[in-house]
Amino acid sequence: MGTTLVINPGSSSKKYALYQNGQLLLEMSFEGGNSGYEVCTEKEGTRQVCESITHADFQIAFARVSQAVKEHLATIGAALTTISVRLVAPGTVFQRHTVIDDAFLTLLRNKELTAPLHIPIILKEIQSSKEHFPNVPIIAASDSAFHATLPFVAREFSLQREDALALDIHRFGYHGLSIASVTNRVHAVSGKEPQKLIVCHVGSGVSVTAVKEGKSVETTMGYSPISGVPMGSRASDLDAGALLELMRVKNMRPSEALVYLHTSGGLMGLAGDSDIRRLLDRQAHGDENAKKTLELFAYRIQKAIAAATVSLGGIDTLVLTGTAGFRSAELRALIVNGLQYLGIHIDEGRNDTLVGKEGTISAQSEPLKVLVMRTDEMREMARIADQINAST
Amino acid sequence: MGTTLVINPGSSSKKYALYQNGQLLLEMSFEGGNSGYEVCTEKEGTRQVCESITHADFQIAFARVSQAVKEHLATIGAALTTISVRLVAPGTVFQRHTVIDDAFLTLLRNKELTAPLHIPIILKEIQSSKEHFPNVPIIAASDSAFHATLPFVAREFSLQREDALALDIHRFGYHGLSIASVTNRVHAVSGKEPQKLIVCHVGSGVSVTAVKEGKSVETTMGYSPISGVPMGSRASDLDAGALLELMRVKNMRPSEALVYLHTSGGLMGLAGDSDIRRLLDRQAHGDENAKKTLELFAYRIQKAIAAATVSLGGIDTLVLTGTAGFRSAELRALIVNGLQYLGIHIDEGRNDTLVGKEGTISAQSEPLKVLVMRTDEMREMARIADQINAST
Repeated sequence: MGTTLVINPGSSSKKYALYQNGQLLLEMSFEGGNSGYEVCTEKEGTRQVCESITHADFQIAFARVSQAVKEHLATIGAALTTISVRLVAPGTVFQRHTVIDDAFLTLLRNKELTAPLHIPIILKEIQSSKEHFPNVPIIAASDSAFHATLPFVAREFSLQREDALALDIHRFGYHGLSIASVTNRVHAVSGKEPQKLIVCHVGSGVSVTAVKEGKSVETTMGYSPISGVPMGSRASDLDAGALLELMRVKNMRPSEALVYLHTSGGLMGLAGDSDIRRLLDRQAHGDENAKKTLELFAYRIQKAIAAATVSLGGIDTLVLTGTAGFRSAELRALIVNGLQYLGIHIDEGRNDTLVGKEGTISAQSEPLKVLVMRTDEMREMARIADQINAST
Repeated sequence: MGTTLVINPGSSSKKYALYQNGQLLLEMSFEGGNSGYEVCTEKEGTRQVCESITHADFQIAFARVSQAVKEHLATIGAALTTISVRLVAPGTVFQRHTVIDDAFLTLLRNKELTAPLHIPIILKEIQSSKEHFPNVPIIAASDSAFHATLPFVAREFSLQREDALALDIHRFGYHGLSIASVTNRVHAVSGKEPQKLIVCHVGSGVSVTAVKEGKSVETTMGYSPISGVPMGSRASDLDAGALLELMRVKNMRPSEALVYLHTSGGLMGLAGDSDIRRLLDRQAHGDENAKKTLELFAYRIQKAIAAATVSLGGIDTLVLTGTAGFRSAELRALIVNGLQYLGIHIDEGRNDTLVGKEGTISAQSEPLKVLVMRTDEMREMARIADQINAST
């Protein structure tokens, strides 16, 4: 155990948290978008404080975090033992949690063009970590590591084998930190150890993962986090012929197409809004486009859940997690209704009253448990750091 | 009713058949590949005769067909009333059966770059038809028309809506002629009208389609026939990020990527052989790669079947068709075993003894029927021509 700074970097949000022996001490979240930037800070035992910042402040978020962390550590008389940064990068070598050394940094830099929306941001955070906390070991907490157990039938595309091996193109899966975070605690919520568990994470990213006796055996995201079911703004599974037609007609290069698929698809593409709450609100006000988009969204998730049952030979527990899965009873009902024929039934009363807390929303008598759980990727990253520290 | 010449053109095979009032009179199949070209001819009531031809003969197959058709018609004193050509082209306007006129030809020519592996071949057959049979109306029998009933949730990608509409990018589906051909006759084979029917076509192309009360509500092929489950040599569903990485590293243009995905994926890509029989044979001889590839192939089809049940709220009838689905008991067992948890059970004895004929392979007592059926796209195309003739 020790004191760990957890870093979850993104293009429009960056989250930092300080943990000591599994206990959260300090949290700082930077969010940005067209409507401006803000930072929210929460210290253990105090209320969250938010303030507006400039785009320049957002760019140098790490400096502010570094100062706050150092002040906090000085107060409690502790030193930072580890930094744990979330790693989203396609590659067999990136499918494990590891201490970042020069060899690893070279591998990561070599993949910058493959994942230009993720890797440069991670590299920048690693660089800042080294500058502000020299000599503190940095751990890459891989978002794909949990899916390293995918069997051949789920891991491989039906591509020319030589190319798949030479270019390291396989289905790596993402959201692994989230799925691990809930999988570890399912028993605590349901009182039962699941054998055939499906975890549906609905946030700005969306995924469905099948977990057999604790191990991932199928997941909807593949080589990149674009794929699988529709998401906030990611295009999800797209016919290769359709993508090639888009590129041909719009004269897009691969790098341009990648940005397009990340930002112009999903709910954003279909309904002009990536926020599920706002779409539910628009639907409530009679917006037909929002209604059809949410129907499509729920249907694709239902298909993914049904498909995932094959890898398990059925299902005994369904977990709904991620911000929207955890918070929106309406969304949960949309997803689960339509799957009754698989034995998935929720108690409407239980579902409606379970908002912002964990619990079971299937009826007491149902053998198939439907759970609502809070995911905590940051805590999972701190746990991984502690685990690696303990083993070295 | 009348006399119809049916044309099913492809890049490595071309099939022609002459029907009169629903009766097959003459059939000619041209097959080609690395090992040479041949033509096989079968007249009503006689045995099939095959002979080797040159590549040049293959290119001018239509002239040989025209001569044979004219001779046959002269013998029976009949005239050709219609030509029916199979249409594989992405586009809302191509999702119906129609008489080909100049306006339609213009639409088709405008899409040549979108489907360069299919449309030029079709245009060539239409041109030959006009030269050899002037004044005979030509009907486009659309391979997507059967899927025109797909609801919004299944028809749309989660793409930017303006682009999807402007570029006409939707999930059109293919194998429609095959699915229609078996759907019409399920009752005759099972003695029961299915409400929740899933048709799994396994030939060189592979697809899974959900049919609700006679109408297609979900299908695995989308904008192009590349997509869905793995096929003989088509890459099937591929993460967009993986495709873009392939294009970036191998410096492929969209048109090159399209050919690559058509020819280097699927079973061919994974095991170097697109023929399911040969892979089963290799597996029987202990070939580990063939075994893993067949496992992956069956698993992906199983996932598609499970996913398709969502659109139906279950399943009451599963039809296995297409050359491999119809002929290989071993392949059928591979696909169906693993789906027992959905109530899909076959009687091994029935399955093993049903080779080359239609029938039921689920046990008598099972409520969920599993049928083996022969698909006949050529007859379906003649039927469509008769229907259009009757209505005009």
